[in-house]
Amino acid sequence: MRAQDLIAKKRDGGELTADEIRYLVHGYTRGEIPDYQMAAFLMAVYFRGMSAAETTHLTWAIVESGERVDLSGAPGVKVDKHSTGGVGDKTTLALVPLVAAAGVPVAKMSGRALGHTGGTVDKLESIPGFRTGLSPAEFIEQLRRVGAVIAGQSRDVTPADKAIYALRDVTGTVESIPLIASSVMSKKIASGADAFVLDVKVGRGAFMKELSQAQALAEAMIGIARLSRRRAVAWITSMEQPLGCAVGNALEVAEAIEALKGEGPRDVEELVVALAGEMIYLGEKAADPGEGKKRAAEILRSGAALAKFRELVAAQGGDPGVVDDPESLLVAPVKADVAAPSGGWVAAVDSYAVGLATMALGAGRVRKEDAIDPSVGIVLRKKVGDAVRPGESLATVHARSDEEADTAATAVLGAYSIESQPAKPPALLIQRLES
Amino acid sequence: MRAQDLIAKKRDGGELTADEIRYLVHGYTRGEIPDYQMAAFLMAVYFRGMSAAETTHLTWAIVESGERVDLSGAPGVKVDKHSTGGVGDKTTLALVPLVAAAGVPVAKMSGRALGHTGGTVDKLESIPGFRTGLSPAEFIEQLRRVGAVIAGQSRDVTPADKAIYALRDVTGTVESIPLIASSVMSKKIASGADAFVLDVKVGRGAFMKELSQAQALAEAMIGIARLSRRRAVAWITSMEQPLGCAVGNALEVAEAIEALKGEGPRDVEELVVALAGEMIYLGEKAADPGEGKKRAAEILRSGAALAKFRELVAAQGGDPGVVDDPESLLVAPVKADVAAPSGGWVAAVDSYAVGLATMALGAGRVRKEDAIDPSVGIVLRKKVGDAVRPGESLATVHARSDEEADTAATAVLGAYSIESQPAKPPALLIQRLES
Repeated sequence: MRAQDLIAKKRDGGELTADEIRYLVHGYTRGEIPDYQMAAFLMAVYFRGMSAAETTHLTWAIVESGERVDLSGAPGVKVDKHSTGGVGDKTTLALVPLVAAAGVPVAKMSGRALGHTGGTVDKLESIPGFRTGLSPAEFIEQLRRVGAVIAGQSRDVTPADKAIYALRDVTGTVESIPLIASSVMSKKIASGADAFVLDVKVGRGAFMKELSQAQALAEAMIGIARLSRRRAVAWITSMEQPLGCAVGNALEVAEAIEALKGEGPRDVEELVVALAGEMIYLGEKAADPGEGKKRAAEILRSGAALAKFRELVAAQGGDPGVVDDPESLLVAPVKADVAAPSGGWVAAVDSYAVGLATMALGAGRVRKEDAIDPSVGIVLRKKVGDAVRPGESLATVHARSDEEADTAATAVLGAYSIESQPAKPPALLIQRLES
Repeated sequence: MRAQDLIAKKRDGGELTADEIRYLVHGYTRGEIPDYQMAAFLMAVYFRGMSAAETTHLTWAIVESGERVDLSGAPGVKVDKHSTGGVGDKTTLALVPLVAAAGVPVAKMSGRALGHTGGTVDKLESIPGFRTGLSPAEFIEQLRRVGAVIAGQSRDVTPADKAIYALRDVTGTVESIPLIASSVMSKKIASGADAFVLDVKVGRGAFMKELSQAQALAEAMIGIARLSRRRAVAWITSMEQPLGCAVGNALEVAEAIEALKGEGPRDVEELVVALAGEMIYLGEKAADPGEGKKRAAEILRSGAALAKFRELVAAQGGDPGVVDDPESLLVAPVKADVAAPSGGWVAAVDSYAVGLATMALGAGRVRKEDAIDPSVGIVLRKKVGDAVRPGESLATVHARSDEEADTAATAVLGAYSIESQPAKPPALLIQRLES
């Protein structure tokens, strides 16, 4: 087998076999196939796409490139969740304890993403004492004892994905559905769960701007799950405006705690209950997703989800007092309101612009080595469909300085469209797919 | 400017500017843009193509990457010729002295190609004493004095082309019309001539198997010439069967000498006269190509072309006695005839198969460092349309050993299709394009 022949085969629209894909991925990971051949192959994939079988072979070749997490030490059907990422998406923080409280064990490994805020582990680290660097033994022990654990990636899973992603980033091959789908699914499979709920965001604040792209990605991931004999549900959900009100690290933890109390923003609760329902269904604690949602809503109301979160925080060394007083997390020195210049109805809140403003405040990373500031961010007071009076607060900026607050306030103002006609909030849950 | 943005621009079907293409080519040649980015860019070009303007910018960026040969020291309009390569193509050997005898100076630089035989300089080196390694001063001096010179590439012209070609070879991006066209034309332009005749081969024994591909390549090269304000004529010519009878290095020299005597195979003479006519026309020694052809035919008949070849051989240290006794070059120890298994008419001679058999005899190179054997090769006795009796010789194999001769004979037999109906030879000159 020669790499150039496989490149040419893909270039000419051929379908690669499992062996051929494995040859490329493992050869590349071992340094036997050079960057330039992988780059040409990735560009050929960009143009030619991949069949469901090829995408699945690619996923498994990436899985085989590294270690795999073994969750069999904990009982039950383990269900994992992935989001393609959006502005204000704190869903995981609420989902994990909620689903665990329903008796479905959740072992969440999360990276430190680049973006407008940190990833889930960065957010949790805004809780004093919270440890996300667990050993494999601690990880599985907590999963067995608490039924829920959220930690950083401690093992060398999917090294091929890391290498290929770094190459895609500089060769114009990021935006390829089979490459995105195999990257996500390989990490999920290597992380050891039995079933997956996938939240595919679409809209201005998401990587996928168009519904057709989001559908193609959801179908590709569901296709991998099906051919891999893994159960999976994908939901395409709206990211036209930020999810909930809080965008920032500690701010999002605080809002997730509100949601666990049943006092969170309506859209956060809607999404959390829907995804938790799917996870409870896939975890075989409900006969169908509808029953799963009912169970999820009951658990929220009962306080069991909040109690499970408190247990999780304590288990990982965090201060459980935060759960009772989430306001204690909001320690940014400057808190500045953004006043509405005119009255009317909010027609749009550009989530992309809000994300950029949050990143500029210091909540996110541009490069891997950047530090993030957990305290800063933006809390929206008005969302699409809300009426607003002139001078009323649209949002509150949490910042390190007045200057940074001013800059963010200007950006937030630009993100709002206020019109004289009432507007309807966009539907959050757009489409469901099941493997 | 960032390479990944230019890759993405091409990937999305955008048209790159001269500055953008120069940034990529010069950055790559200087080692500032890595192989993997150039590989991804080349694959994007493979899929998206390039406009005539982009292809011309690419050509000139490659020209600018190295030295340029200055032919202004010799008077007259200098005309160069390029062939995309075919089996038995000894045209250059006859064309250069013929055109020079018409008063058009020809300065030919030729590489040592990989293929079924060596390149033009390898063929000439089968003449005892012939030197192809001329200094720049020797080269221009001979051009001024003799009006004709053929030498190996002595200067560092188009280093970007060498680097890009090596990368294309291992990344599945050889077969791209704008990349092939810019590679050819950059070398031609850097070699210093004022005008160009391009022989684009099409058919089984050529790189371009389909007429539409050959047309696209001819149009791309003519487009580069037009936008570069250089005169050029392209001829698409047939390579279904080998050109002439001889395939091999010394064998082709001998056949070229026959052609210069007016005793060569009909197709060789037809092509040589047609291309020489174009070169004489572009060299402004004829008012139109028809007059150029007439001039070329007269010069062949007069013996002036043969005399000019003798002069060129002597000028470059070769034994001019070879010109009078070309048979003296045929020194392979084994000469074996291939007998026709049945009678009929030759319907096809697969030039690709004949090329492979010649390479297997030792006439060509697989790798740059391979040595070639000037004496070996194949001489066809029958061509398409010829009648053949059972047992009559189809071809003579010139080999180093009986074993190699046997293997080649079997391959030659396989290359011949003999049918019971008379067949017409394919038309040689297919289509003419002018800038």
